[in-house]
Amino acid sequence: MKNQPLGGNEMPRFAGPGTFMRLPAQETAEGLDVAFIGIPMDIGASLRPGTRFGPRQIRAESTMIRPYNMWTRAAPFESLQVADIGDVPINTFDLKDSVRRITAFYDEVLQHDVVPLTMGGDHTLSLPVLRAIAKKHGPVALIHVDAHADINEHMFDEEIAHGTPFRRAYEEGLIDAQNTFQIGLRGTGYGPDDFDTARNWGFTVIQAEELWYKSAAPLMEKIRQQIGDRPVYLTYDIDSLDPAFAPGTGTVEMGGLTTMQALEIVRGCRGLNLVGCDLVEVSPPYDPSGNTALIASNLLYEMLCVLPGVSYGS
Amino acid sequence: MKNQPLGGNEMPRFAGPGTFMRLPAQETAEGLDVAFIGIPMDIGASLRPGTRFGPRQIRAESTMIRPYNMWTRAAPFESLQVADIGDVPINTFDLKDSVRRITAFYDEVLQHDVVPLTMGGDHTLSLPVLRAIAKKHGPVALIHVDAHADINEHMFDEEIAHGTPFRRAYEEGLIDAQNTFQIGLRGTGYGPDDFDTARNWGFTVIQAEELWYKSAAPLMEKIRQQIGDRPVYLTYDIDSLDPAFAPGTGTVEMGGLTTMQALEIVRGCRGLNLVGCDLVEVSPPYDPSGNTALIASNLLYEMLCVLPGVSYGS
Amino acid sequence: MKNQPLGGNEMPRFAGPGTFMRLPAQETAEGLDVAFIGIPMDIGASLRPGTRFGPRQIRAESTMIRPYNMWTRAAPFESLQVADIGDVPINTFDLKDSVRRITAFYDEVLQHDVVPLTMGGDHTLSLPVLRAIAKKHGPVALIHVDAHADINEHMFDEEIAHGTPFRRAYEEGLIDAQNTFQIGLRGTGYGPDDFDTARNWGFTVIQAEELWYKSAAPLMEKIRQQIGDRPVYLTYDIDSLDPAFAPGTGTVEMGGLTTMQALEIVRGCRGLNLVGCDLVEVSPPYDPSGNTALIASNLLYEMLCVLPGVSYGS
Amino acid sequence: MKNQPLGGNEMPRFAGPGTFMRLPAQETAEGLDVAFIGIPMDIGASLRPGTRFGPRQIRAESTMIRPYNMWTRAAPFESLQVADIGDVPINTFDLKDSVRRITAFYDEVLQHDVVPLTMGGDHTLSLPVLRAIAKKHGPVALIHVDAHADINEHMFDEEIAHGTPFRRAYEEGLIDAQNTFQIGLRGTGYGPDDFDTARNWGFTVIQAEELWYKSAAPLMEKIRQQIGDRPVYLTYDIDSLDPAFAPGTGTVEMGGLTTMQALEIVRGCRGLNLVGCDLVEVSPPYDPSGNTALIASNLLYEMLCVLPGVSYGS
Amino acid sequence: MKNQPLGGNEMPRFAGPGTFMRLPAQETAEGLDVAFIGIPMDIGASLRPGTRFGPRQIRAESTMIRPYNMWTRAAPFESLQVADIGDVPINTFDLKDSVRRITAFYDEVLQHDVVPLTMGGDHTLSLPVLRAIAKKHGPVALIHVDAHADINEHMFDEEIAHGTPFRRAYEEGLIDAQNTFQIGLRGTGYGPDDFDTARNWGFTVIQAEELWYKSAAPLMEKIRQQIGDRPVYLTYDIDSLDPAFAPGTGTVEMGGLTTMQALEIVRGCRGLNLVGCDLVEVSPPYDPSGNTALIASNLLYEMLCVLPGVSYGS
Amino acid sequence: MKNQPLGGNEMPRFAGPGTFMRLPAQETAEGLDVAFIGIPMDIGASLRPGTRFGPRQIRAESTMIRPYNMWTRAAPFESLQVADIGDVPINTFDLKDSVRRITAFYDEVLQHDVVPLTMGGDHTLSLPVLRAIAKKHGPVALIHVDAHADINEHMFDEEIAHGTPFRRAYEEGLIDAQNTFQIGLRGTGYGPDDFDTARNWGFTVIQAEELWYKSAAPLMEKIRQQIGDRPVYLTYDIDSLDPAFAPGTGTVEMGGLTTMQALEIVRGCRGLNLVGCDLVEVSPPYDPSGNTALIASNLLYEMLCVLPGVSYGS
Repeated sequence: MKNQPLGGNEMPRFAGPGTFMRLPAQETAEGLDVAFIGIPMDIGASLRPGTRFGPRQIRAESTMIRPYNMWTRAAPFESLQVADIGDVPINTFDLKDSVRRITAFYDEVLQHDVVPLTMGGDHTLSLPVLRAIAKKHGPVALIHVDAHADINEHMFDEEIAHGTPFRRAYEEGLIDAQNTFQIGLRGTGYGPDDFDTARNWGFTVIQAEELWYKSAAPLMEKIRQQIGDRPVYLTYDIDSLDPAFAPGTGTVEMGGLTTMQALEIVRGCRGLNLVGCDLVEVSPPYDPSGNTALIASNLLYEMLCVLPGVSYGS
Repeated sequence: MKNQPLGGNEMPRFAGPGTFMRLPAQETAEGLDVAFIGIPMDIGASLRPGTRFGPRQIRAESTMIRPYNMWTRAAPFESLQVADIGDVPINTFDLKDSVRRITAFYDEVLQHDVVPLTMGGDHTLSLPVLRAIAKKHGPVALIHVDAHADINEHMFDEEIAHGTPFRRAYEEGLIDAQNTFQIGLRGTGYGPDDFDTARNWGFTVIQAEELWYKSAAPLMEKIRQQIGDRPVYLTYDIDSLDPAFAPGTGTVEMGGLTTMQALEIVRGCRGLNLVGCDLVEVSPPYDPSGNTALIASNLLYEMLCVLPGVSYGS
Repeated sequence: MKNQPLGGNEMPRFAGPGTFMRLPAQETAEGLDVAFIGIPMDIGASLRPGTRFGPRQIRAESTMIRPYNMWTRAAPFESLQVADIGDVPINTFDLKDSVRRITAFYDEVLQHDVVPLTMGGDHTLSLPVLRAIAKKHGPVALIHVDAHADINEHMFDEEIAHGTPFRRAYEEGLIDAQNTFQIGLRGTGYGPDDFDTARNWGFTVIQAEELWYKSAAPLMEKIRQQIGDRPVYLTYDIDSLDPAFAPGTGTVEMGGLTTMQALEIVRGCRGLNLVGCDLVEVSPPYDPSGNTALIASNLLYEMLCVLPGVSYGS
Repeated sequence: MKNQPLGGNEMPRFAGPGTFMRLPAQETAEGLDVAFIGIPMDIGASLRPGTRFGPRQIRAESTMIRPYNMWTRAAPFESLQVADIGDVPINTFDLKDSVRRITAFYDEVLQHDVVPLTMGGDHTLSLPVLRAIAKKHGPVALIHVDAHADINEHMFDEEIAHGTPFRRAYEEGLIDAQNTFQIGLRGTGYGPDDFDTARNWGFTVIQAEELWYKSAAPLMEKIRQQIGDRPVYLTYDIDSLDPAFAPGTGTVEMGGLTTMQALEIVRGCRGLNLVGCDLVEVSPPYDPSGNTALIASNLLYEMLCVLPGVSYGS
Repeated sequence: MKNQPLGGNEMPRFAGPGTFMRLPAQETAEGLDVAFIGIPMDIGASLRPGTRFGPRQIRAESTMIRPYNMWTRAAPFESLQVADIGDVPINTFDLKDSVRRITAFYDEVLQHDVVPLTMGGDHTLSLPVLRAIAKKHGPVALIHVDAHADINEHMFDEEIAHGTPFRRAYEEGLIDAQNTFQIGLRGTGYGPDDFDTARNWGFTVIQAEELWYKSAAPLMEKIRQQIGDRPVYLTYDIDSLDPAFAPGTGTVEMGGLTTMQALEIVRGCRGLNLVGCDLVEVSPPYDPSGNTALIASNLLYEMLCVLPGVSYGS
Repeated sequence: MKNQPLGGNEMPRFAGPGTFMRLPAQETAEGLDVAFIGIPMDIGASLRPGTRFGPRQIRAESTMIRPYNMWTRAAPFESLQVADIGDVPINTFDLKDSVRRITAFYDEVLQHDVVPLTMGGDHTLSLPVLRAIAKKHGPVALIHVDAHADINEHMFDEEIAHGTPFRRAYEEGLIDAQNTFQIGLRGTGYGPDDFDTARNWGFTVIQAEELWYKSAAPLMEKIRQQIGDRPVYLTYDIDSLDPAFAPGTGTVEMGGLTTMQALEIVRGCRGLNLVGCDLVEVSPPYDPSGNTALIASNLLYEMLCVLPGVSYGS
């Protein structure tokens, strides 16, 4: 039998181990189909800090999640071996060194046949993770849900920061521009190029306004058709959500996605060849109720539910 | 003239008596058409506690409510005699004894011809209230708005807890399964039976996903037609709402109802033969702004507005 | 070149001057097309206080806003000279004197050919601002977005308070009743006259319920057509938003507008002859995350983007 | 038998009536030896508002207090008839009118032979209360515990505000300057006269620094000797306490009194002829834990314990 | 080499495993000299709940503690084998069953030659722990630091609650009354017997007032002399501290101990034959900064530093 | 006449410019005797972040400070020209580059004959400031108030971080070891060398325990005598205070200094030849009441009051 989350009838949900969904902890990805990994980082953040505590709080708020998905009927722990392999020991005093350490950590993880589900941390982390992912899988299709395009050339003259990862990933050939989708972008910028540059590279940009009052399911249908069976990476920035739904984050933009749309987006990835996912930018100091982290933990669970090989109930 | 809430031109709304809507307090239900009652309990809660302070905070946040409903044009205090009869002295050190005390209290209340509107407290309380209600009215139709089905067989081997009341109510014949509606269920569980068992008993289950992006008015229309003039009990768990709307509760599930749908559901009960209502699971320690309690107080007011016998303005 | 907000590549967004969008400060409106002005007042508030700190927090949370509007493609700083001219020194111990001081301050400001964008402050302030506006422009069309009609005859026997400004403005002939639109009203009142009186004066009242699940764009289309090229004042009470979106305010009503609708309403004013705008009722003590103020600052930016004379990008 | 607070074995302490110590409520002071009264006011405050909610929160946090004083062995409910007579309906839109209303209310109260214990509210309220007190008792000795002298000539050109009451009281002959003691003053001012003016009038000023590291008991011994059997009024501003002990207040000054000293000061009033007391400046929006209000409620209880006529246990 | 806490140079202190001080986890006490154990319980609490989350938050805030005590020069991990053995699976729906489960758990633990250091949880837990302790060690000397005596005969007619454990322990002969010390008691009660009953049993009661302005070291000197080499249990209720120092707890009493005194009390146990310790009543919902839990974690570390067999540096 | 803070009778204290004490802003230090400077940095912090917002919040909470010191009778604005020259534009994505930028900024400032008073920011900043200070003044005497020695050789293999500045300053000869005083150190470490190394270099280390229950005035007397007329730098880490007094900081240690001692320490610097001061480690996300920043702003004001050349009142 596969690893199971510790249930509420064995230990009250306010207690027990501090792992994601109270799953078993192990030190490496050996023998796993899926590994939850924390990247406790915020030194790439340009406004509010705090995402360094993201992994800890996401784990703490994941204790309510039970194994079976009542809507999609996914039963991920029936068919996949899943564990929490802890945190990447980043160097909090040096962003560039942290980026190197993350890639090295994921290179090691990806020597196993495993899908990493990453708990952030600021969005800078997607770049070093994609560097490891692309080494193994080649350039990947990308589904990028966010309020911001994160394709700045520089921030304060720096190439590495939480507003630049997808320009770097494009430049380095880590992602397949024709199969890159940016969903939920909005707010203000320095000029039209903030979004149009990526369009020129081949990215498909869906601004938040295009989704207002609508189900995101038809969009995901189209994305699935276009991507086909290519390897795909899903990066989910919690600030894609409207701050009503996810107040606890660092660079808030009004007029964003609803959690209903977020669920449709993640659930809409079912059938894709997902090779990795991340959930970033949860900032606990700005999330005193814990509800932003709770939503993040649920979205990570929903990512798990759409990975290749998951069993579905009747 | 009937009891009236103390108005803002007599006493600033941040002051005055600590009763619901600053209505008169009285010790028993004698002479009343409607009685507001607090059940200050959280020892049936499985995750976050705090609902023991629910009644106090709901009352504190009810001071903004004025007597007339600007949308439905209900004027409940024109035709009904309403008061706040205080709290049930539960035994906070023993859940089973508290359940007994609640039924005894409601047995006493229901010797009068009164509709109790209950401020919770954790959802365990609906069971002992329904025991008293069914003694007087027989098995009742049930409209149950919630994120969770609350039909567990046991929780941690216990029969009485906030996740079990509606299985117990079904087993004890307190409710009419063919006229029981569960609205807003979602999230994760242990397997398909978590919802399907109740369907097999005859309950109608409307998962939250079925209501996304939609008005709840058509659903209520159907429910009204099916229930007809049977006696009905309405139990409203504040966690049916998405946490964006009601962050201050104990067992949060993303992707829930909006307050617009909540208003449609309660307003959609107009015309039904309501014999009692409760509003449960407001947890003040997780509601520092007071807005979750404020919404709860408004929903209780809207329940009052749809009770049999309410006057409506032109 | 016109004044520009201080950019994130020159100074981190968590630092720099405490003006709106980190624009230059100046003492008078001389030479400006648009002046941001704070009115730090809450002594007109009937329930929760705190809006006295509104201007300070709105400025603090405005630092994320960049100059270009990614959706509407407005580039307001290309064509308009904008600055922050500080706060009105109200007398916090005397509401009536504060009202006089505000009108005097705006009389002075309006000697220049400038559009004032006001950061409140409780809603009482719209009356003295309108007194100055009407002196210059005559009775103006009014777009009033709010949960409340604010047309009480008296509050606690007082003529001046945050629930009375638009009755006073009507009585004094400051606004054009046939071109006055109240959007988002809801909740409870003392009787049908609370809204119907204004209807009888000629106001158009759109209750929140009329907008549920709908885009506000068609409504704004109609309003623009009716108003034509009359001078218009826009007053935006943050409590028009549902508390899920704007928890940090003083008199909360459930079932309100979404931020998507708020953006549509403000953006829908493009083409109107706006002569002044205000954004009121942000209460920082009830907004610990700062997100309500952040939304307010974005709405003020969006107001700037629809002023006459703004450049639009390609 | 006299009125007793509702005990924790009859009703859990998190429930029950919203009166001070869950005492009986009554509408007038008739038949009482001591009346608790709320004055829900903050429009006299010069910095942070919120004390309008002080009386409500002080009552809410008073539920833990049991009838017997474990240190002083006072048993006030054995010998005194005590009740909570509710709030003064101040006019929150007009400070000067509120001041008139307060005096009128206390004139009425003082027609009975009762000692009023007032829950504030900002410190402005001591002036109108003293006007009523002095009408009945003549100029009173004053023990004034505070971080600030509150003897400004004007604030923003106004005579009435929370920084002026004791200059007004001195000018109007309400207090006996030779028997006026200001304890805990500190911080910054406009010049030496801020404290020395009062010294010149005859006040005894004890700056906070004079009490650092020391028991306040010897000071109270001296004060008692000097005052003798004159009628005394005790006004306790919670900001006299260091903000470590009382964070929830409006005008915070570091380096203040400890709660141990506060207890010694109040307990040190035993034997004095106290004719009234107030506890002011608790601001609930700045007191989310409720602990500042809790301390305030305990100090009010300790004031009750030193009133003339209290029984003491063995 | 013994188990060591994970250091800040290996993993940032905001990350890593969720155990106390990031020590290794193990499932039983086998091979340990000291076992940290969580008891996640609050259903014995009479006012504010929340201590069910105490163990989790104490662990989270313990990450700053380094292995060496800079003042006492204790180096506990040099000589003792220490681990975190997780939480007791209490039954949160039944207090009496939880009490049975705790004793059973500790009976099992104490089959090993280990000192349990317990993280609570409400104070009810000391009774079932003492039942197991006394089975192994006989009646123990008790050092009980608390604001309350916790010797009620009943609470709401119940024998088991957080206000009764030390009467039960006395009645059951679990503790040695002549060597029982209650330190820090204060506040209000129902009569002199609230403290004097225990004095009559032989307890030494030191009220908080007796320690004001004083070092607690001389007191501990006397206690050490009296206890000699008897086995001792130390139970530390965080509410013994003044709320300035420990705001995050359930039944707050003003005028309490300082953290300096708390450190002196725990450090003053050096040389005693400690056979177990607990730290109770940390309530995370009332401790948003985490500082109360942080202090609790430090006091637990200081307890570890005074256990028999600890090495001391030069 | 010198620059004066904007007074409360000209503009309410909750409004006005966002500078320190509402002083005039200017861009350079030209013509100033004293310059307030913000360093908005937290990327050198090892546990909780947030000090990047320190300067903004310290300024916001400084508005209550009036010009005259009621205890010491200092009147700094009578004799010194003081202004706020804004923030250092640090590079938040690169700690080492930020350190270079800070020194460059202070090199520029110190071309004027000015004393810089720095608002932090994490403690890393003292190193680059001291580099500029020592260039101008040579090795300085140092008064370092802190919970931590901050003399780590490395943190996570890095030479630059908030735990290393005073080892670097010693190694680089920026400070005079024989005249370096570390006050308030406490808590846990890796071994005795954590404090003893500095003692061996010649530093005087006063652990917090040595000051418990005592005035710090005699200590300051000794320090003044030893330092004589050497140039002195004062660096004040707000975490030197016990968390009861200063909860809003990143690396909390219990058992610390009181604010009374803090005032004595800063006031005890009167007569020294202070050439610069900083106040660091205020973390606004952990300081929701603002009181930690308020205390910090008062300590900065007290530093101003003891600079050479300050006038004193009679």
